[in-house]
Amino acid sequence: MKDLTQMLIPTYEDVLAAHARITPYIHRTPVLTSSYFNSLTGAELFFKCENFQKAGAFKVRGACNAVFGLSDEMAAKGVCTHSSGNHALSLSYAAGRRGIPCNVVMPRTAPQAKKDAVRGYGGVITECEPSTSSREAVFAEVQARTGGEFVHPYNDPRVIAGQATCSRELLEQVDGLDAVIAPIGGGGMISGTCLTVSSTAPGVDVYAAEPKNADDAFRSFKAGRIIADDAPETVADGLKVPLKDLTWHFVSRHVTDIFTATEDQIVEAMKLTWKRMKIVMEPSCAVPLACMLANPDVFRGRRVGVIITGGNVDLDTLPWMKG
Amino acid sequence: MKDLTQMLIPTYEDVLAAHARITPYIHRTPVLTSSYFNSLTGAELFFKCENFQKAGAFKVRGACNAVFGLSDEMAAKGVCTHSSGNHALSLSYAAGRRGIPCNVVMPRTAPQAKKDAVRGYGGVITECEPSTSSREAVFAEVQARTGGEFVHPYNDPRVIAGQATCSRELLEQVDGLDAVIAPIGGGGMISGTCLTVSSTAPGVDVYAAEPKNADDAFRSFKAGRIIADDAPETVADGLKVPLKDLTWHFVSRHVTDIFTATEDQIVEAMKLTWKRMKIVMEPSCAVPLACMLANPDVFRGRRVGVIITGGNVDLDTLPWMKG
Repeated sequence: MKDLTQMLIPTYEDVLAAHARITPYIHRTPVLTSSYFNSLTGAELFFKCENFQKAGAFKVRGACNAVFGLSDEMAAKGVCTHSSGNHALSLSYAAGRRGIPCNVVMPRTAPQAKKDAVRGYGGVITECEPSTSSREAVFAEVQARTGGEFVHPYNDPRVIAGQATCSRELLEQVDGLDAVIAPIGGGGMISGTCLTVSSTAPGVDVYAAEPKNADDAFRSFKAGRIIADDAPETVADGLKVPLKDLTWHFVSRHVTDIFTATEDQIVEAMKLTWKRMKIVMEPSCAVPLACMLANPDVFRGRRVGVIITGGNVDLDTLPWMKG
Repeated sequence: MKDLTQMLIPTYEDVLAAHARITPYIHRTPVLTSSYFNSLTGAELFFKCENFQKAGAFKVRGACNAVFGLSDEMAAKGVCTHSSGNHALSLSYAAGRRGIPCNVVMPRTAPQAKKDAVRGYGGVITECEPSTSSREAVFAEVQARTGGEFVHPYNDPRVIAGQATCSRELLEQVDGLDAVIAPIGGGGMISGTCLTVSSTAPGVDVYAAEPKNADDAFRSFKAGRIIADDAPETVADGLKVPLKDLTWHFVSRHVTDIFTATEDQIVEAMKLTWKRMKIVMEPSCAVPLACMLANPDVFRGRRVGVIITGGNVDLDTLPWMKG
């Protein structure tokens, strides 16, 4: 098993190939600055705005790399995945651009808006019950029936190489960064960031930011082995999933540190970003800022890239409306 | 009177001088595109994002031009205005950057968040009752006491020349525009747009977009004379004020047409823009898109610049939450 995993680990050459492959289908997203947040943190912050990305999230990078890297023969059978979040949207978008089928297994309890969005991009949804056993059984049936290529949301070298193109752009767009910080869930974005930074700018620190309520990556990092939680509850709904072997490879070797933030800190940072930067972003994207505000000494005086990972929120149920 | 007004009409040379004067204090805001809105309208849309502007609105352009154009002697006495909106914020910001006093008369009923924001930029608030007579009496007292220079929110040649720098940037940023559309309230932005377009790109149409519930500019345009409403009610709270002589000069001569949108159309266009473009913008900014969606034949197949005027919204009371 170990050797197989080692073979699957993407290299920076894979990142360059991915970038060339996906460029026609993605935005080179802008980097925004905010004098307000600079003075609040004492750092110089550069926000890489993947909320403006196609399909509304960075995940379209990995999805496009997987879809457009398939041979014509494999592509003809389409792709499939299980996800109720941005990966489902992104894979549907990528498959739609290539003109191949995309089957997505989603819990029947997923928000109607998410289902509508997947269908809007041409994805075909098969519903399962909201349990792991049902999801696995239904997904196995869908994959067997369609023969589609499974594209995992993050534990896939094609996906990690695709996500790595985000920090490649960021390093091109901003000179002299001292650090990059991004949220961590399953670890796809952080792994891609580690891959790019360790290959091209090894002096730059990579920080991961995680909800305290779903701090499995934080505890894994401290323990030196993957710890997976069963069903954490956090407003940062994109960050509930655990690390897997490929992402653990990068996190354990290249991440400088992991910080956590409380639910209140996350919601406050989210609302403050909407208010001051005038951008719509998901709760997950606020976790890095919340962590920086809670750990000012780490970041003060430094040039820090902050990855805003996505903007697909339900505008009818914003978290500061809930209490 | 007529001659005096004529003398006050700003020229394109004033716009160039304004741009040079204010450049250190403003953002050259980005132009965003959206394949979704392009396919929805059949037009090619270029959104000039003044919601990302300093102080959160285009009005900082005119305010900075007025403030930084003052002689040192005049500047020492500061500036003053009456406004409960973006002009109050913008003038406070501009005065703060020059280090001179800014006195703002605001109704005591204005939202606390707005008052806090004015004070955050260093403005000094004198409260009045929420009536025209009280506002005028209190403002006269403040102006007499401070000797500060009055900077009107829009009926001021310095302000119009400043706002005109926005469409100057837009025309530099996007080649081959067929039209520009912007919301109209008092007419400062539209007048500036007319000034730039008529001077540098006279073949480009200028459209104004107005709430049906506050359609005084629409009716003025059709009647050929200024019609002012007393107290219109619309969700687009930046667009309630009437045209004045200087803005009427530009609107009556250079606007191609004025369209109106209902409250429902405005709120729907606002929410759709937040959802698809991931930007926070005011209800006023949605009026142009609402008008384009209601009049598709006018815009189909054309390259249209759309001015997003500001992003200062109360995130706790979004209009689609209200019922």
